[in-house]
Parts: sequence; structure tokens; C-alpha cells
Amino acid sequence: MAALAAEAPVVALLTDFGLADDYVGQMHARILTDHPGARIVDLCHDVAPGDIAHAAFLLLHDAQYFPAGTAFVAVVDPGVGTERDVLLVDAESAGAVRWFVSPDNGLLDPVIDRSDHVRVRGLDLAAWLASRGMRDGDVSATFHGRDVLAPIGADLAAGYDAGMFSAEVDGWMRQAWRPPSAHESTREGRIMYADRFGNLITDIPVEESSGTVYCGEYTFSSVRTFADIEPGAAGWLRGSKGTVEIARNGSSAAEVLGLGPGEPVTFSTLPRGG
Amino acid sequence: MAALAAEAPVVALLTDFGLADDYVGQMHARILTDHPGARIVDLCHDVAPGDIAHAAFLLLHDAQYFPAGTAFVAVVDPGVGTERDVLLVDAESAGAVRWFVSPDNGLLDPVIDRSDHVRVRGLDLAAWLASRGMRDGDVSATFHGRDVLAPIGADLAAGYDAGMFSAEVDGWMRQAWRPPSAHESTREGRIMYADRFGNLITDIPVEESSGTVYCGEYTFSSVRTFADIEPGAAGWLRGSKGTVEIARNGSSAAEVLGLGPGEPVTFSTLPRGG
Amino acid sequence: MAALAAEAPVVALLTDFGLADDYVGQMHARILTDHPGARIVDLCHDVAPGDIAHAAFLLLHDAQYFPAGTAFVAVVDPGVGTERDVLLVDAESAGAVRWFVSPDNGLLDPVIDRSDHVRVRGLDLAAWLASRGMRDGDVSATFHGRDVLAPIGADLAAGYDAGMFSAEVDGWMRQAWRPPSAHESTREGRIMYADRFGNLITDIPVEESSGTVYCGEYTFSSVRTFADIEPGAAGWLRGSKGTVEIARNGSSAAEVLGLGPGEPVTFSTLPRGG
Repeated sequence: MAALAAEAPVVALLTDFGLADDYVGQMHARILTDHPGARIVDLCHDVAPGDIAHAAFLLLHDAQYFPAGTAFVAVVDPGVGTERDVLLVDAESAGAVRWFVSPDNGLLDPVIDRSDHVRVRGLDLAAWLASRGMRDGDVSATFHGRDVLAPIGADLAAGYDAGMFSAEVDGWMRQAWRPPSAHESTREGRIMYADRFGNLITDIPVEESSGTVYCGEYTFSSVRTFADIEPGAAGWLRGSKGTVEIARNGSSAAEVLGLGPGEPVTFSTLPRGG
Repeated sequence: MAALAAEAPVVALLTDFGLADDYVGQMHARILTDHPGARIVDLCHDVAPGDIAHAAFLLLHDAQYFPAGTAFVAVVDPGVGTERDVLLVDAESAGAVRWFVSPDNGLLDPVIDRSDHVRVRGLDLAAWLASRGMRDGDVSATFHGRDVLAPIGADLAAGYDAGMFSAEVDGWMRQAWRPPSAHESTREGRIMYADRFGNLITDIPVEESSGTVYCGEYTFSSVRTFADIEPGAAGWLRGSKGTVEIARNGSSAAEVLGLGPGEPVTFSTLPRGG
Repeated sequence: MAALAAEAPVVALLTDFGLADDYVGQMHARILTDHPGARIVDLCHDVAPGDIAHAAFLLLHDAQYFPAGTAFVAVVDPGVGTERDVLLVDAESAGAVRWFVSPDNGLLDPVIDRSDHVRVRGLDLAAWLASRGMRDGDVSATFHGRDVLAPIGADLAAGYDAGMFSAEVDGWMRQAWRPPSAHESTREGRIMYADRFGNLITDIPVEESSGTVYCGEYTFSSVRTFADIEPGAAGWLRGSKGTVEIARNGSSAAEVLGLGPGEPVTFSTLPRGG
């Protein structure tokens, strides 16, 4: 799995920085300074502050829609400036290699576990700085997204040799990911987040909209589309990530049902009452 | 009106997806995967959820600022996954042809009615999928913005022949648009939305800031600029869309006056008290 | 300092327009219509409405991360449509020239004062319109960001000769900027804004995280990273702009401490109690 040399590198940003501040703009600026032809995609910047599992879930499901060779820069980093490591991962799925750069805090666990082939490297910051003629003082203690992770992601997307400033490692943090579990006729998972419409996105993969979902005191029957839910009622369907999604038609399931991130969810292949 | 072949297609996105989730990022990713040179403009993603009239109004007034050949992908789609059609419209205004792709729910009514020349086509989804080597299973039931509308918009902007996967139609939904009405010395319309500053944007076109505006219990005199409004007072002016806009100087007209979307508005060419 | 001709001009946008409306999208559209190869960076659009000092502070600290030749279009413009001037500034810092376009309201004061070389020009709107075959009627009274400032910024980034539509001036508004003051062992400044995480960013430059900070009734000791702050406590550190930043670990300093923009801050080089 060699890095793909790209004339117009694609860098995808995933952070909990929000869009109200100038943090994301500075990352764009820094990338374009180093790689004028880079194409930057803002995958999501409203990960709940510090919610590593939320970011990990988005990355696992969304990476497939990006071009081969894309470098994902994922920054949810409560430990910025401490001695935590930075991981550079190249992962192959369905024949396409993509890069992932992130603090070593568990954010990349699902990508590492679910890819066909994967290589995990640890950043040698001193070597990277030296390769660019930079010094320790050029790196702030609070914004590695701008000073380290984004420019390294762009370097990798542009085909730079990762071996110049990283070494393969075989140990890394594993803490964020609790993959859903599967039993004979049931699967156990949880609500990952509520989207803008109040739809509750879970981590339980399903092949089709069929079966029954239990969450809190509620039981949900399956529907195929949002419009199939009767007004005033709720249901579940196979969402756009291929996982169980609990929804209401025209109102917020999160608000009306009072359900939110972390809530345990059970999926049964049997129909309701079956 | 042939589609314009474009080396660097411009795709403009207009949705009610918001920017807090990863929906818009996935649309960007999908477009860049198919058309690496595409330039993507986020026109607006904070259309009120399901508010087709709001999106239709923005599209009618803003399309003119985009390059000829731009494809607008407009997704406000409460009926996603149902049997509703998808429209592909090529419309010519002031000599420039642009594309519009949207669910058939009335969103394109104003563009269709107000363009110099227009051709309305209905998508043949099976033909489009076949032309790309895709199958039904590649399309989710809940996110046609990513799986169908955005990639088709990019195809059209890139000069693909629409005839390959659509056919001209002469019937489509008409429900969202109630164009403002004009009488001898008055025009009747309504508030479309309040912007970030609390300015109330109406759909009533005016040639200049002159005349009187009535809304709710209020009467507004005309001013030319925001700064012409006295502190603590309100007025109306010709806004940046060429329509009546009700504003206060330095505070939110929406909040202070308690007015919002849907409120009827009357414009009179006569001065206040005249 | 001649304008740099750029094949792919970089235009950076800094406004108080927010991202909920279609204002920023229209600016992008207008720029790409005139300069199809332009690369646009949204530095920040959530400057507090009308808060010129906030925007000026971001521009002063962030411009350095953008490529040489970038044109910054900074629009916080309560006086839009009035007779206020528009400034075109080319400023050289650390050997790199960048452009700044803004209403003449004090927004560019810090950039003008802190650059190595600077030239301040006033826009001749009639000449610019004439150079583009445009007329007065092509400029709205409420949205110069779309109609004037963004396209001029793009022109300058693309290497157009500023002398064609502007003339050097030696007087401009000075009102927004109150630079922090330095005494023997103390510096006096203020809180500029709170970021998404509730960190309080001040305008007091510091070389390292060492010394004591006083604000309101509080006294803060220095830490090097966010993680060095004990849970339930607050501290200050050298933030990513090289200024004093007051923070809590895992919660919002702005909310918990009840501090916000404008609050006076004192930095002392002496340790707490020292």
C-alpha cells in the first residue's frame, strides 16, 4: 500500500471546532499555503465538543464516499499539547487506500478495525518539523489542528513519503469504540447522536428496514421512508449510514421522545409483537 | 439550449440539511469523487426544515449571480424515498443557461415561471443508474441528496447529455409558490424569512426605496440604507434581492416587532399618509 | 510592492453575515463568476454583528497563515450604502504582501499599524464600475459585500492594477482598535471574545505561558496546555494567537466565570502571589 501521489490532493476535515470561530478557516489557509492545489472538504465540524465516539462513528461510515487517496484530518483532541501521540493510518477498503491523521485517543479505532488492510504509524514530530525547516516554536500548545495535523494530512494526500516522519507502531489507544454486539435474533447498540431533524442515528447496522427496535420505554416498527411514518407517530428505518435510525415524520424524535446520545438500543429481526 | 460542456463544473448546493451534521460534507465528497475538478458553492443549507417556499425564493433571486452552466442541486425533500419524481430543468435567463435539479415538489416553480426559456425533464433513475454501472441498492431511502441529486447535478454541470437519463415532461407539482400580486398602486406579498440581523425579507419586488409598507399593525416609511433608520425606529428599504425589506437600525426587526415568515405585507407606491 | 499576479487567486472572507443565510454563498458565486479559478477561504463569518474590533483582531492574527498574495475581504459594515469610503490596503509582513479590502470603519487599523510596509488606497467606485462596464444601478444599497467588496478583492488577488480604480490616501477612520498597553511588569488589555469551547481570548500578547492574569474578581495562574488545568479549576495559557487565553478544562470559562467581551484583563510577569 504505497501512498498515492495526487496532483490535486483531497483533504477532509472532521473536528469539534464548530464553524462560529476562525479555527477551521485557519486550517484551510495553512493547507492552501503548503499545497495550493489542494481540495478541502469540511466533512463535519460540529462533533459534540470532546465526543471522540461521535467523530469515530462519522469517519467509519463516511470515508467511503471520498476519493481514493483522500487524507482525513480528524481532530477531537482534549489532550492537545500533552505527550499524547499522533497517528498516521493508511487503510485500504474495497481496493481504495485513504489516509487518516488523528491524535492517538481512540478516534481511529473503527477505521482500523474495519478496513481490509491497515498500517498504523506514529508521528515523529521532530522529524516532520525538520523536513520542513520548522522548529518546536512553530507549534502552538493549543492548536495542533492548524500547526501539525492539517499540514501533515495535506502532505500525505499530496503523496509525501510517510516514512520520512513516522514509524510503524503496534500499540495505540483503544477506548472510544464499543462496537454493537450481535446475537441470534437481536443486536445491541446505542444512539450516537441526533441530527438536525431530530432523527436518532444508532450504530446498529441493518441490511434493510425490517424488524423491531426497542429504546427506553419505546417500541418502534419499521418503515421504509420518513413519509411512511404516520403523523404523530414514530418509527425506525435503515438510515443513510446503513444503520438503525429512529424518526418521526415532520417533528423531532429526539425532542418528542426525550432520547439522546448513549441511550442503549436493541434491534430484533422479529416483527413487532412477533 | 444544449448543456454547456464545462472543464470545471460549478455545482451550487441549496438544502435544509443545516451545517451541524455530515450531510453536506458527504455531498461534497460524492461530487469530487465523480468530478475531481468540480467547484462547489454552498448557497445556503439553513433553509427552515421542509420550507420549500423559502428555498424556492432564494433560488429565484440568487441564481443570477452564478456562472452560466452552473447546476443547482436544491434539496428540501420531506418525501425522500417515496415515488415523487426528480426534475432536471435547464433554464435560460439573460442569455445564460443554468441547470436546476430538485425533487418534484414545487421548489422550482419560480425559476420555471420566470426564466426566458425553460425545459423541464423528469429523471429516469434506472437509466441514470445503468449509465453509471450502479444498481438500485446503491441508493439509500433517506439521502437522495448524496446518492442521486448531487451526482446528477455534477454530471449536468460537466456537460453530460441529459437525454441519456431523463425525458421531457409537461406536468409537475405546483404548490409552493404564491407569487406576489400587483394592483394599481399596491402590491400584496408576504414575509419569506428573517435573516441573521433580524431583517424581514419579503417577496414584493420594488424598483427603488420609495412608497409605504404595511405589515400587521405597523406602517413603515422608506429609507435608502440601514443607517438612514433612526435608532429605536424601523423602516423599509429595497433589499439586496430587489424586494421590500423591513429593518431596524442595530437591532432585530423580527424580534422587536414580533413579525415572521408568512405574515402578509402590502406595499403602496404612495408615501406614508399620502 | 506591486500586486502579485496569481493564476489561482486566494480570496479570504471575514464577515458578520453568519452562515444561516445565503449572503456568503452569493459572495462565492460572484467571485467564481469573475475569476473561475479562484480559491475561496471562509476565515470566519460569525463575527458578532457589527463588532468591528472582533473582526480586526482576527485579521491581525490570522492573515499570516494565508499564502502571499491573498486578498482578504472583511465586511462588518453597519454603514453600508452610506458615503463611507472603501479601503484597499496592500501590506507586507515577513516579506509577504497581502491585500485587504474593507469599509473604512477602523477594521484595518491593526493590520495597517503592525505591518512592515503598508499602502492605503481609497476606492474610486465609479472608476471600478467603468473598468468592468457596470453602472451605479448594479450596486445594491445593502449588500456591498456581494456587489463591490468581494469582486474587487478577487480582482486584486488576481493581479489587477489597483491604480486603475483607487488612489492613495493618508487619512482613514481610527476608532475600533485599542491596542493593549505595556508597563514595567504588567500589560493591560481585554477579552475579545469567547470561542466555541468557552475559552476567553484576550488581546494581550505573551511570549510564553508564565506569569499571572487578573480579570474581574479572579486571579489565574499559568498552565501550558488545557489538560494541565485541574478539573473544576481555571487557568490561563498562551493561546493559538500568541495571546493570553483564560480556560477551564472540559467546561466553558465564559459561562462558569461569567466573563465576556470587553472585560479588562491585566497580565503580570510575576507569579501568582509573587
